[in-house]
Amino acid sequence: MKKDLKIAIIGAGSSYTPELIDGLIARSSQLPITEVRLVDIDEGWHKAEIILSLTRRMFEHAGLPVKVILTQDRKEALTDVDFVCSQFRVGCLDARIRDERISLKYGMLGQETNGLGGFAKAQRSIPATLDICRDIEKYSPNAWLLNFTNPSGMVTEAVLRHTKVKTVGLCNVPVLMQKGMAQVLNAEEQDVFVQVAGLNHFIFARQVNYQGEDKMDYALEEFLNDNQAFNPKNIPSLKWPRKLLANRHQIPCPYLRYYFSSDDTYQKSVHEAETEGTRGEVVKALEEKLFEIYSNPDLYVKPKELEGRGGQYYSDAACDLMSAIYNDKRTLMHVNTRNNGTIAGLPDDCAVEVTSVITKSGPMPLNVAPFDPDTLAMLQLMKTFERFTIDAAVNGDYQSALRALTLNPLVKNGKVLEAALDETIRENIQYMPQFQAYYEANLK
Amino acid sequence: MKKDLKIAIIGAGSSYTPELIDGLIARSSQLPITEVRLVDIDEGWHKAEIILSLTRRMFEHAGLPVKVILTQDRKEALTDVDFVCSQFRVGCLDARIRDERISLKYGMLGQETNGLGGFAKAQRSIPATLDICRDIEKYSPNAWLLNFTNPSGMVTEAVLRHTKVKTVGLCNVPVLMQKGMAQVLNAEEQDVFVQVAGLNHFIFARQVNYQGEDKMDYALEEFLNDNQAFNPKNIPSLKWPRKLLANRHQIPCPYLRYYFSSDDTYQKSVHEAETEGTRGEVVKALEEKLFEIYSNPDLYVKPKELEGRGGQYYSDAACDLMSAIYNDKRTLMHVNTRNNGTIAGLPDDCAVEVTSVITKSGPMPLNVAPFDPDTLAMLQLMKTFERFTIDAAVNGDYQSALRALTLNPLVKNGKVLEAALDETIRENIQYMPQFQAYYEANLK
Amino acid sequence: MKKDLKIAIIGAGSSYTPELIDGLIARSSQLPITEVRLVDIDEGWHKAEIILSLTRRMFEHAGLPVKVILTQDRKEALTDVDFVCSQFRVGCLDARIRDERISLKYGMLGQETNGLGGFAKAQRSIPATLDICRDIEKYSPNAWLLNFTNPSGMVTEAVLRHTKVKTVGLCNVPVLMQKGMAQVLNAEEQDVFVQVAGLNHFIFARQVNYQGEDKMDYALEEFLNDNQAFNPKNIPSLKWPRKLLANRHQIPCPYLRYYFSSDDTYQKSVHEAETEGTRGEVVKALEEKLFEIYSNPDLYVKPKELEGRGGQYYSDAACDLMSAIYNDKRTLMHVNTRNNGTIAGLPDDCAVEVTSVITKSGPMPLNVAPFDPDTLAMLQLMKTFERFTIDAAVNGDYQSALRALTLNPLVKNGKVLEAALDETIRENIQYMPQFQAYYEANLK
Amino acid sequence: MKKDLKIAIIGAGSSYTPELIDGLIARSSQLPITEVRLVDIDEGWHKAEIILSLTRRMFEHAGLPVKVILTQDRKEALTDVDFVCSQFRVGCLDARIRDERISLKYGMLGQETNGLGGFAKAQRSIPATLDICRDIEKYSPNAWLLNFTNPSGMVTEAVLRHTKVKTVGLCNVPVLMQKGMAQVLNAEEQDVFVQVAGLNHFIFARQVNYQGEDKMDYALEEFLNDNQAFNPKNIPSLKWPRKLLANRHQIPCPYLRYYFSSDDTYQKSVHEAETEGTRGEVVKALEEKLFEIYSNPDLYVKPKELEGRGGQYYSDAACDLMSAIYNDKRTLMHVNTRNNGTIAGLPDDCAVEVTSVITKSGPMPLNVAPFDPDTLAMLQLMKTFERFTIDAAVNGDYQSALRALTLNPLVKNGKVLEAALDETIRENIQYMPQFQAYYEANLK
Repeated sequence: MKKDLKIAIIGAGSSYTPELIDGLIARSSQLPITEVRLVDIDEGWHKAEIILSLTRRMFEHAGLPVKVILTQDRKEALTDVDFVCSQFRVGCLDARIRDERISLKYGMLGQETNGLGGFAKAQRSIPATLDICRDIEKYSPNAWLLNFTNPSGMVTEAVLRHTKVKTVGLCNVPVLMQKGMAQVLNAEEQDVFVQVAGLNHFIFARQVNYQGEDKMDYALEEFLNDNQAFNPKNIPSLKWPRKLLANRHQIPCPYLRYYFSSDDTYQKSVHEAETEGTRGEVVKALEEKLFEIYSNPDLYVKPKELEGRGGQYYSDAACDLMSAIYNDKRTLMHVNTRNNGTIAGLPDDCAVEVTSVITKSGPMPLNVAPFDPDTLAMLQLMKTFERFTIDAAVNGDYQSALRALTLNPLVKNGKVLEAALDETIRENIQYMPQFQAYYEANLK
Repeated sequence: MKKDLKIAIIGAGSSYTPELIDGLIARSSQLPITEVRLVDIDEGWHKAEIILSLTRRMFEHAGLPVKVILTQDRKEALTDVDFVCSQFRVGCLDARIRDERISLKYGMLGQETNGLGGFAKAQRSIPATLDICRDIEKYSPNAWLLNFTNPSGMVTEAVLRHTKVKTVGLCNVPVLMQKGMAQVLNAEEQDVFVQVAGLNHFIFARQVNYQGEDKMDYALEEFLNDNQAFNPKNIPSLKWPRKLLANRHQIPCPYLRYYFSSDDTYQKSVHEAETEGTRGEVVKALEEKLFEIYSNPDLYVKPKELEGRGGQYYSDAACDLMSAIYNDKRTLMHVNTRNNGTIAGLPDDCAVEVTSVITKSGPMPLNVAPFDPDTLAMLQLMKTFERFTIDAAVNGDYQSALRALTLNPLVKNGKVLEAALDETIRENIQYMPQFQAYYEANLK
Repeated sequence: MKKDLKIAIIGAGSSYTPELIDGLIARSSQLPITEVRLVDIDEGWHKAEIILSLTRRMFEHAGLPVKVILTQDRKEALTDVDFVCSQFRVGCLDARIRDERISLKYGMLGQETNGLGGFAKAQRSIPATLDICRDIEKYSPNAWLLNFTNPSGMVTEAVLRHTKVKTVGLCNVPVLMQKGMAQVLNAEEQDVFVQVAGLNHFIFARQVNYQGEDKMDYALEEFLNDNQAFNPKNIPSLKWPRKLLANRHQIPCPYLRYYFSSDDTYQKSVHEAETEGTRGEVVKALEEKLFEIYSNPDLYVKPKELEGRGGQYYSDAACDLMSAIYNDKRTLMHVNTRNNGTIAGLPDDCAVEVTSVITKSGPMPLNVAPFDPDTLAMLQLMKTFERFTIDAAVNGDYQSALRALTLNPLVKNGKVLEAALDETIRENIQYMPQFQAYYEANLK
Repeated sequence: MKKDLKIAIIGAGSSYTPELIDGLIARSSQLPITEVRLVDIDEGWHKAEIILSLTRRMFEHAGLPVKVILTQDRKEALTDVDFVCSQFRVGCLDARIRDERISLKYGMLGQETNGLGGFAKAQRSIPATLDICRDIEKYSPNAWLLNFTNPSGMVTEAVLRHTKVKTVGLCNVPVLMQKGMAQVLNAEEQDVFVQVAGLNHFIFARQVNYQGEDKMDYALEEFLNDNQAFNPKNIPSLKWPRKLLANRHQIPCPYLRYYFSSDDTYQKSVHEAETEGTRGEVVKALEEKLFEIYSNPDLYVKPKELEGRGGQYYSDAACDLMSAIYNDKRTLMHVNTRNNGTIAGLPDDCAVEVTSVITKSGPMPLNVAPFDPDTLAMLQLMKTFERFTIDAAVNGDYQSALRALTLNPLVKNGKVLEAALDETIRENIQYMPQFQAYYEANLK
């Protein structure tokens, strides 16, 4: 078995990178890492340099002789690596804020990975990711791409359908659900069997077992009672609609509030934007503080302020996944992978977020029992939205973009849609090369 | 072959009845009708009496010795009939207006057969229809129920799934599409082969052939250019979103504007309600005028003012259907019938609106080629909405009602939904006995 | 509307051609045919010349000024025609007899269109048909190919999947079933509504209605009682297994005896081969007599001896189909066409034999209600056999041939299968060019 | 966690019981068993007494204070147990031999779990198992039934569909495949990831991974080269048809020889029956010797002669399963469980044999990637055979029996089938009470 693992981190200037490094250090006995290659572009270079220094201090402090470099040269970064962690944000937080503000301007929810904002993020992330994949195919055809670039599900599906790269998509939402279940049941996390299934940011817990007993009814009640164990920090905390959700033997993930209480979450997002600023604006301020902390030459561990962000456990999940693959652990994790019949009624070649056994050959999903008809119809709708979104990102086809957005329950349609889409393309044209022809012909 | 056909008309006080009588008279050589039994309830009795007189005058004028009676006694009305035409409106136009106003109050489209209004109408129509069907089962087990009570698709499905009555659901929308195609192609109606498929008020033309040639591309262009041949009077005329719909080899029915241009149709409905009144209010005024005309003892034909309403050709379709069944004509008509695999991806036991060969044993649907993925996802969503709506109508289950409405693209969800649903139930409680227990416990 | 129809007949030397000519003459008022082009190859030339003369005599006798030519030049034959009737038999009856004898030698049913014989016939017919289709695409891209070359279903599917030619596959089996039902019900043929569905030579009547009543139970009983109305001359008449088939609301076509009474039909075929000769041998003798009759210069009508063959009504069906297409008749016929969801559980792009409305744009199949599970499993098995058979015919892939035959219930598998398949290829190599490479490497 | 596990063994007189006891002893640190209750009926009583003594000697020798009883009283046996192992053979080996001889008499394969013999065994085993399940429901509703009574897949499905008992079906075939793969790859068994899928005795290895690499092609080649690692002792060793099976990325289980080389295995079974006797006859002799050995009062371990039988590892799998459930091990095992979408194209409520994660709440199957079309068609055919077989076993419906057997590729159909089925029922009437009415009316 290979003893010198090399890892590349794309989008190294992310404020989450120290968590990832912390995770690698904590698993040093399981993962013999000898080299970490940080990659970023001009826009993130300053932050990436801060991360580079901090990373070196962290490994040194841990007594681990890991070589750490920072580069913009993808060949240098990607040659002969074992794992690639992808966590970049094309256009940085400013692009996110722009998405939020455009959505709100047209009377729609302004949010990062759902609705028009999620669509826009996909249009920026997918072309960039596919470009990186061309290099992974060339320089490290056997590497695993661990994707946590959002929207994670759509990015993962684009990689699965349009490249030969081996990939797994990650999200911290099911990790938080797993932890929440354990807390609610007063149990160790690994003793609770939780099966989740659905699409990224659109999943449901389908089974909750503990000590051989079905605990779904109990957990669902706690959930509807707003037990805070279930609630990540970046999702608005609102009462769940009990009359709609009770007794249905499945627990929605927090993001499903956007779909089950659309109007309330929309109102709240308007209010927040008017008072404290959009989530992107809040995060931007938070991130500036984090990088101030990271710059401290006396810091050599992950600072606990990092936990203030919603993405906690994201990087932890990535480290667990690397270890499970490397060590053929066959543990259960919740990942984005190829459907292949796992969720009946969705295309075989699409990405789904499902509980899987992690082997040295990758994730083997557990079968998912049939969904009830309304949940299935919603999943089919959202997956169809995702697929037209991916098509638009790959082909720059405006009609595909419209077909995608027309399906999305958080997006208005009619004239307002074309106006909002046009503005999205116009404001993002440097990050959405696929729409160049449309832009030239219609928006310039 | 039977030579004395008897027909019952439920909801005889409808302003459309003269069109139905006119159609029977025009087909007297094909349909040997000897008896017409008009049925209505107290609320519609006055109008039904006007219709009774007019009907008698019309038959007399045509020289047809048809016995016409008016009764509230369903046994008298339904014993030994061949066809039952159902066209009632529980709660009359006032209920429709109430639906429109409640929807608008909560910021949703106020419309009769879509969104919250369509749901409410189903909650009133389905229990009443099933009640009538119990009598048809008892007094005329071989009769055909021709349903044009709206929402026609859901009412038909309720009958198919919950009774033994032979039924066909009718709508004038596909009739108008067929006529529109012929007009656009400058052809005789019967020479144009049009296949429609979908759900009632949610259909698409899937094939348009003329003289052995595929005319879909041409017809779709005319349609997107707002050729008025396609547009019924009761649907707001707005530009179709060409960028969304062009080159897709299918033509949506006019009602699909509510789904492809939701925001525009909503804005328009708000504007109309504020200026000329809701559609229900407009129709109510129109109907009063119509009944004034009907009352004229010198009137003995269908007055041409009737054509001002959107439902024209409805009754014509009913007469064609009776004749096609009675004479085993094997002509093609567009009807609501059991799916049974006709549209792949929808349940076998649901009602679909599809082009069918009409035989003496009823409609035999033409197979429908697979829909494209976004149209299919929308059909699945809408059908699931319909099925939970039917369940709520049959069982009075509040959660089913919420599950239905949460899926509907024209309905807001979250707290506003429960408020709007509660108000709908409260205001309609005398017409929605299924919700009595919920009403007692929560709304009284 | 075009007034000078031209028809090409491929395989004109068939003994059925006079029936086809007779059908054209009988429909001369509906089909304004001005030219008939007979096509055949060297092997059939002598018989084709006899047919040419007879055809001319028949048209002359009927007083129809139709130009009739005979040619081997496909460009001459196929330029600017409206209909192409394909009815050839590659390798003539000798090939059929060889198939029968090879099958029997290895202990399998020796029959023309089922089992190993049907597979062999497909391997000869499909490459030849695709070759002809290349010329139709070139010289008459708008022509309809009416295929009655056997195995009709597989040949039709090959054309549908591998060419752009518009085609319909025909068979006389459903015609005979329709006639049988009418006879049993003592009714006019067109008054009985019969819906058939399945694969060519593997269909079931799924509906039998008369005067608005379901007559399936009655017809099935007659059928199980061996009412001879149902039985064509070329299928061994054996008692149907009543205990297996009763009360199942579907009536199998006569060929299904091979599958429901495999052992009995096999024993009978062995006995017949040992006594009167195989069916091919019997037909060969019969055909010689027919051509003697056809040669009589005083014969100018279809001789009634032709009815002794099993294929009667085949050509009649072809003429009805031509007229239905040309006149946009919208009558119901039973044809082989693209599935597209008509039979749930079979691939969209496969050929199925189903009752269809015939329009000027071709057949529009009636939807087929779901089959019961065992019939569906058999249909899926047989269709999969057909598809691997087609693949083998197109690609010459030996493994596809084995995969096809291994599925077929009338074919033994194991070592005996490879021996029988090798002998089939060896004996037919001049008619199966697709297997040339395998032949060279393994069998020479 | 419970510390005093009680186990009931139904059919304790089986010669495999010492292996089961041996397995329990080997896992005594994982499974705190305090009581073993042996159950058998009169026919097996003598053998069960021998087993009782041997079992007590074995536990005593191992130093384990386990209480062992033998009883015919199911209430005594089944009250408050944790696991029930079912491994009985209704009618003993004589019934098996009778099945084999009847099949051979009618020219069909004489084998225990396939073809007519498998059908007959299901007709004996299913009613008896359901009867036992009524008692488990009553006396130990939380117990797990570990079924290895054959035909294990059909018996498991009958329990899943017709009782509330929690059950898992076991077979040693996938265990042997797993061991064979490891041997061929020269690896530890648990390091090789093998996914199997299909129906009991009709499975395929679908994935073979080792050290992160796909080893399917290599393993398939070894398999086709008849590497003896893959071959259990009770299946005739015959060359596999390489031309049919090569390069298809799946490996059939040994029983699939009956389907891919039907004629060869049939010939071999005829030859064996004529020379050494049927497999049942051979096993009967072997078993007599085994019981002679078991009777030796000095024997206190599992004798190695037991390995001569084909069922080796069966009981080992049962012990592993008990430990995996009890300890929530989440290890991968190959078991028969509810499909629920695991294999697309088979009914949700059927039993499939698939690789599953074993949790304290039972097996969670891994999703199975879509099968290729011919394998799927065969699985659908066989599952439909199984379902009609189960229906016949539950309802005693003769037509269901015929419908089942007509589908089975190893069974002849036609008159011979009815004769063979009638003889099967006549000879087994005391074990097939469901057919009593048919027997009285037709066979007495």
